[in-house]
Amino acid sequence: MGVVVQTIERADPEIIAELGAAGVATVHEAQGRTGLMSSRMRPIQQDFSVAGSAVTISAPPGDNWMIHVAIEQLRAGDIMVLAPTAPCDMGYFGELLATSAAARGCKAMVIDAGTRDTRELRAMGFGVWSSAVSAQGTVKETVGSVNIPIVCAGAAVNAGDVIIADDDGVCVVRRDKAAAVLEATRKRLAGEADRRARLAAGELGLDIYDMRPRLAQKGLKYV
Amino acid sequence: MGVVVQTIERADPEIIAELGAAGVATVHEAQGRTGLMSSRMRPIQQDFSVAGSAVTISAPPGDNWMIHVAIEQLRAGDIMVLAPTAPCDMGYFGELLATSAAARGCKAMVIDAGTRDTRELRAMGFGVWSSAVSAQGTVKETVGSVNIPIVCAGAAVNAGDVIIADDDGVCVVRRDKAAAVLEATRKRLAGEADRRARLAAGELGLDIYDMRPRLAQKGLKYV
Amino acid sequence: MGVVVQTIERADPEIIAELGAAGVATVHEAQGRTGLMSSRMRPIQQDFSVAGSAVTISAPPGDNWMIHVAIEQLRAGDIMVLAPTAPCDMGYFGELLATSAAARGCKAMVIDAGTRDTRELRAMGFGVWSSAVSAQGTVKETVGSVNIPIVCAGAAVNAGDVIIADDDGVCVVRRDKAAAVLEATRKRLAGEADRRARLAAGELGLDIYDMRPRLAQKGLKYV
Amino acid sequence: MGVVVQTIERADPEIIAELGAAGVATVHEAQGRTGLMSSRMRPIQQDFSVAGSAVTISAPPGDNWMIHVAIEQLRAGDIMVLAPTAPCDMGYFGELLATSAAARGCKAMVIDAGTRDTRELRAMGFGVWSSAVSAQGTVKETVGSVNIPIVCAGAAVNAGDVIIADDDGVCVVRRDKAAAVLEATRKRLAGEADRRARLAAGELGLDIYDMRPRLAQKGLKYV
Amino acid sequence: MGVVVQTIERADPEIIAELGAAGVATVHEAQGRTGLMSSRMRPIQQDFSVAGSAVTISAPPGDNWMIHVAIEQLRAGDIMVLAPTAPCDMGYFGELLATSAAARGCKAMVIDAGTRDTRELRAMGFGVWSSAVSAQGTVKETVGSVNIPIVCAGAAVNAGDVIIADDDGVCVVRRDKAAAVLEATRKRLAGEADRRARLAAGELGLDIYDMRPRLAQKGLKYV
Amino acid sequence: MGVVVQTIERADPEIIAELGAAGVATVHEAQGRTGLMSSRMRPIQQDFSVAGSAVTISAPPGDNWMIHVAIEQLRAGDIMVLAPTAPCDMGYFGELLATSAAARGCKAMVIDAGTRDTRELRAMGFGVWSSAVSAQGTVKETVGSVNIPIVCAGAAVNAGDVIIADDDGVCVVRRDKAAAVLEATRKRLAGEADRRARLAAGELGLDIYDMRPRLAQKGLKYV
Repeated sequence: MGVVVQTIERADPEIIAELGAAGVATVHEAQGRTGLMSSRMRPIQQDFSVAGSAVTISAPPGDNWMIHVAIEQLRAGDIMVLAPTAPCDMGYFGELLATSAAARGCKAMVIDAGTRDTRELRAMGFGVWSSAVSAQGTVKETVGSVNIPIVCAGAAVNAGDVIIADDDGVCVVRRDKAAAVLEATRKRLAGEADRRARLAAGELGLDIYDMRPRLAQKGLKYV
Repeated sequence: MGVVVQTIERADPEIIAELGAAGVATVHEAQGRTGLMSSRMRPIQQDFSVAGSAVTISAPPGDNWMIHVAIEQLRAGDIMVLAPTAPCDMGYFGELLATSAAARGCKAMVIDAGTRDTRELRAMGFGVWSSAVSAQGTVKETVGSVNIPIVCAGAAVNAGDVIIADDDGVCVVRRDKAAAVLEATRKRLAGEADRRARLAAGELGLDIYDMRPRLAQKGLKYV
Repeated sequence: MGVVVQTIERADPEIIAELGAAGVATVHEAQGRTGLMSSRMRPIQQDFSVAGSAVTISAPPGDNWMIHVAIEQLRAGDIMVLAPTAPCDMGYFGELLATSAAARGCKAMVIDAGTRDTRELRAMGFGVWSSAVSAQGTVKETVGSVNIPIVCAGAAVNAGDVIIADDDGVCVVRRDKAAAVLEATRKRLAGEADRRARLAAGELGLDIYDMRPRLAQKGLKYV
Repeated sequence: MGVVVQTIERADPEIIAELGAAGVATVHEAQGRTGLMSSRMRPIQQDFSVAGSAVTISAPPGDNWMIHVAIEQLRAGDIMVLAPTAPCDMGYFGELLATSAAARGCKAMVIDAGTRDTRELRAMGFGVWSSAVSAQGTVKETVGSVNIPIVCAGAAVNAGDVIIADDDGVCVVRRDKAAAVLEATRKRLAGEADRRARLAAGELGLDIYDMRPRLAQKGLKYV
Repeated sequence: MGVVVQTIERADPEIIAELGAAGVATVHEAQGRTGLMSSRMRPIQQDFSVAGSAVTISAPPGDNWMIHVAIEQLRAGDIMVLAPTAPCDMGYFGELLATSAAARGCKAMVIDAGTRDTRELRAMGFGVWSSAVSAQGTVKETVGSVNIPIVCAGAAVNAGDVIIADDDGVCVVRRDKAAAVLEATRKRLAGEADRRARLAAGELGLDIYDMRPRLAQKGLKYV
Repeated sequence: MGVVVQTIERADPEIIAELGAAGVATVHEAQGRTGLMSSRMRPIQQDFSVAGSAVTISAPPGDNWMIHVAIEQLRAGDIMVLAPTAPCDMGYFGELLATSAAARGCKAMVIDAGTRDTRELRAMGFGVWSSAVSAQGTVKETVGSVNIPIVCAGAAVNAGDVIIADDDGVCVVRRDKAAAVLEATRKRLAGEADRRARLAAGELGLDIYDMRPRLAQKGLKYV
């Protein structure tokens, strides 16, 4: 049943970098509020962000064999995205695997399960977003798949999709829409800069967005 | 159904400041162990505390319109306290709203839902206590209310109540009891300083509090 | 029903120290992946670790009386391990109790419940691993036991067992197996150093561990 | 700190009965979608409902002493509503206490904690809505309060408020608004009967509520 | 942003019926252990099962407008599958909507959110699998989409996929694989009947599946 | 690492039966409120109870191989108790394994993980208490152990201990204490019958247990 797809397409590195710089909240908005993983995905580092191309991993609970398989498929700039086939908090990933992945230019791991060696991972600067921290060891007994479509923490991910991750969580941008999402992201950023300046100057959102008539129409009463 | 109460009473700023300096654990004890929000309310900053007057917000799940309405009601030293009408982890609050609130002298947001732009909020020094971190965007479609009595994370909050928040969580002090609670807080702090010194010197709580006879009477056996 | 066992055996301090230096993930592996507490046990400090001998505490929900009793039993290098008799997130432990425990040479508290005064505890360098942070106060009404066998966060703990705690969680090593586990730990560390070097140089785990034939036999297909 | 309020006002029994017959979902809607307890409150019986006047109980975690105190305050038709002062799943309530409460005409217990003897309680026909089922025993050591305002499972409850509970959960109607809410409930029920008939006949909500123009205006596209 | 896909393909009704008769556990196994929704999806009925074609609904938290839109798209034998765009436990669905859906031949609702009127729904024989039961009302303010690909409770679902639901949960079979999965299901059922008879007669799985040599090779020791 | 202990001692069947008849809540109280599993352990049947001797199983997450091994060790009257080595909700156990276990006289399964085929298990009258219901299939790749000491849902269990399970949960009685616990249980039952009669007649617990003086001393105020 296990399959490893060896050839995947990736988005343009410049697009990926610019999406990463915009950040999860902005990109998620720019693409119509889609693609966000569950808020249970938390980073082990603070004030840290990455963006890269997804190498997807479907693995059984408590079995990290497929991470070894996936590492061979990594290219510089990739991010591994692992979804267990059932909820699991065990420590699939740690410093040794990160050393191997980093040797191939991988930037980060996104895993809807546990990670360990978090102190060492922070020291290495290897980004990890996970749903648990746990030292619990895993086995290497059952094959899974690499680079097939998966659902990770509630988000559909295809190999080669763009992954953006920062303090606010993890967002997936479909590879074939990355350029269009970047366009929308740029517009949003431009608008935000203007609004930030007006809000900082004390102008109210009620006025900037002309909300008062609609609030009145909806029946909001001031007493 | 939406109501905005525009005039609220606030506690004396000096009382608020002194309660804040005492901290959540001490104030919560001093007022008879009441007013504490659920432990799911966590700060996005470490080693950070605030105290201020509550501007309350009741909002539907996934709808942050009322934050714009609430910001107009803010005065310097206020803290917004938002309770969704059903559990929700979406990102109601972020950097732009914080910029607007800060422009009116607001210090912090307490929200039993999600927040986003956490890195930027930390950089701004704007305090947030929330039950989730999420980039998920919200809508502006349904009115709620501002400055009505709410239940936030298990605690009843009225507009103008004193909010104390630090690394240990969030505590609500009723406005009309703030002075009395401060009195009790001062006494508690005085007692703590004395006990701290004795405990640091190696004296045991068993002796300081004369616990041994009562433990024996309750049947505790040393073997 | 309450019992305090006053005389317990402890492991050799040098063994404890060396296990602590190896860390939770490595020791847990070395002893056959046993003894790990639940991943809900999180540290209040980052990049921090301790190792010591367990003084066990069984306490009712919301009653921290037995911590006072336990402190009298502490020796330098001990770690308190508290399991409530039912799930509870209240703040059993804070700065004053830590001051008292530290005065006796205790290094840390492991508690499957809440802790408070986290900022002060961090400033003191007193290690705490807990399942919650909460300012909620407890009572002193019902006796429990000290130094009896307990189950804490899913792990069986006997008084005098070795406790290792770091960013990855908390692991228990049975006192009578501590020397043997240390032996296994040393072997594991030696192997890890070699593997780390090879992985950093770009060699693949697939080759180092000779996984390819077994993956093929299990039916993994490359496409 | 414990207080027992001995004299409370209750709503008109006929109003209570009619609200109970309407059911939680309808009454909750009729009073503007307020007063609903958290969905963690589940009944131990199926196809069962009650309505009555709240006798409120604030009790420490794992301490059911106040239920004995509350039982003395019960009158025929009352429902006990217990909120622990911190999250707790212990079995505060079982068959003996229910026997005592039933002897005074009490109909049900609503408790944001655990209950036990569920089989016997079902056999007695004594209604229980709780957030847990647990045999774990509690103590009688710390006083709480009876008939003070509480927050139970996220809802504010005052003594004498009307409690409606059925398979869908638990709803609180403020005593002083019970008559008005009943009026709104009757209107809602009348409308529902008409709509039910039209929907059963195959008419669409899209047409009954004239939703098509507004959907189009909001940009919904049919493809 | 909202889209309603009006024309979808469905699987052969006889295939759907036979998959439904086989049950969730068997079909899930037969298709390689894929397609299962999270175990948080629980039925409101016991000893009840359905199978049908998915009409998918993507809806905002707390907004059930799209159910009205979806009902118009229903054909006899369909099952609605609703995924909110963020976690939500509110009561999107109840007796009136079920009456409307049943009038068009819809058999069931699968919803990763709350349902209400559960007693009435059971009485109607309308199947519901949900992640919560709640009377909490929703609004009709924001458009979503119907019959687009969604992720519901961790499973990817396309409009027209086969949904099987029973006491064990909910499983999705891709429409284009339904015939093949049925073939595999039949084989599995045949094998199960034989094994059931042998196991009931006292033969051991250890022998039927010839497990002893492999257990010995893996190091299992009998003492 | 896997071990199967083939010879275990069991308690006297008459003692087991009488403990079972007394029920979980009573036995748990009689043995000093110890031995109760977590409230997450729920039965798949209502109004159902069993008592028997524990055959313990330690199994990896998502791997049910050891159940086959354990079944060979079963004797009439035994109950299997399975603890996964990390949290897991997968469906380890279903109708085929129950058929095999029942053929050896086993009465029930207690599992801190998932079960499936719940409808068939109810029809068979095979008792199951589990922390989840899930159709998710498991593998048979990694050995675990049978009849070693385990921690299941927070309770320590040794092979041969007495397991009591009913609607209120699961309780473990140590084999070597079973006779003494039965003695205490009988006394408790005798007292309960008397108290039940007095409470049913309207006497108050406040008076039966002479609580009024102690409540007054603790400061309870009637207003």
